[in-house]
Amino acid sequence: MWRLYQFPLCPFSRKLRLLMSEKSIRFSLERENPWEMRDEFFLMNPTGRTPVIQHAEKDIVLIDSRAICEYFEETVGKNPMINGTAARRAEIRRLVALFDENFYGDVTAPLLMERMTKRIVLREAPDSRNLRAAMRLADEHLDYIDYLIDNRPWLAGSTMSLADLAAAAQLSVADYLGGINWSGHEQARGWYSTFKSRPSFQPLLAERMEGVQPPKHYSDINA
Amino acid sequence: MWRLYQFPLCPFSRKLRLLMSEKSIRFSLERENPWEMRDEFFLMNPTGRTPVIQHAEKDIVLIDSRAICEYFEETVGKNPMINGTAARRAEIRRLVALFDENFYGDVTAPLLMERMTKRIVLREAPDSRNLRAAMRLADEHLDYIDYLIDNRPWLAGSTMSLADLAAAAQLSVADYLGGINWSGHEQARGWYSTFKSRPSFQPLLAERMEGVQPPKHYSDINA
Repeated sequence: MWRLYQFPLCPFSRKLRLLMSEKSIRFSLERENPWEMRDEFFLMNPTGRTPVIQHAEKDIVLIDSRAICEYFEETVGKNPMINGTAARRAEIRRLVALFDENFYGDVTAPLLMERMTKRIVLREAPDSRNLRAAMRLADEHLDYIDYLIDNRPWLAGSTMSLADLAAAAQLSVADYLGGINWSGHEQARGWYSTFKSRPSFQPLLAERMEGVQPPKHYSDINA
Repeated sequence: MWRLYQFPLCPFSRKLRLLMSEKSIRFSLERENPWEMRDEFFLMNPTGRTPVIQHAEKDIVLIDSRAICEYFEETVGKNPMINGTAARRAEIRRLVALFDENFYGDVTAPLLMERMTKRIVLREAPDSRNLRAAMRLADEHLDYIDYLIDNRPWLAGSTMSLADLAAAAQLSVADYLGGINWSGHEQARGWYSTFKSRPSFQPLLAERMEGVQPPKHYSDINA
């Protein structure tokens, strides 16, 4: 069985968990805190980042969330998530990059720093200017999701794709950390609430990061 | 024909240019300075980043260097660069991410800030501490390339792949900006010099960024 090295608020591990659930791939979770810089983990992955996934029986270690998602897309046929024409596949991958890189850099990474790392690792108070900047950028990203959902049922087109999983993974972490103000974003909120009721999402919503509590609406599937 | 929006020292555009040359895909270059934040460019790509590639006759616009590389890999059979078993393809993509994200963040991005953006956009002096930090991290990345080339002829295995193109693209920009000290890295230097003599590399080596001069060894294919 696959063993996934991750921590509860790693958005890239969440994307991979959603993909594996949607494809009915069995896996177990192995807790890895990258900020502890464990030697054994660096031996597996020289960048020291989560997720890493290992299949001991098959002697396979896979690294980098996008590389791992492509691997499962190529090896497991059920519920294809990077599908359609080459142009549609390029659109899916463009949006995955937008959420993995831009949304993460603008929103998720600063929220993780201010509300998780500073609390449980650095023991510092959060910087409210950084929080406000992240929330303002989150609002711009929600505008873009609203625009996409005005034109398409799912982010990359007519069917669910890895773009939706990547976006939902980032949003779920930002929402856990109190960084998302949904008001005025009915399209994004509607798209996300559909997601929250999917079976693949339930383990994420039920999980808690020690020392960091989410707002009440976070795991309410009707919110 | 494809029209590629880029600027001479964009490492992601360089990766794409190498891929297209290796696959004999014809394209023209369109100069785009992302720091000018041109409205028309943001309308094409909401992240405002290069490269973007357009095929006016086919009404296609593609965004994000990795998504574009995958697109050409899927649509143009010549010289496959993400090939082999699913595990080998995962290894190629892991290394592409390592160079696109880690090498870029550690080395190329700070060098571009200190030696290009500060000179031609901000009109500030470079910060020598940032330069030293980038060069120290470059040295660690070269150690890793040495290690890979000790074990394999090309970065991801027995044949050239997108991993080599991604690494060479980042290294070429860092080398242009004087951030690479090759001494003590014979394996990496040997691998890179093979690259420098490939026809796909010649247009990159001949090109200059206005206001920023490379060191003498940069375009010397025997250095």
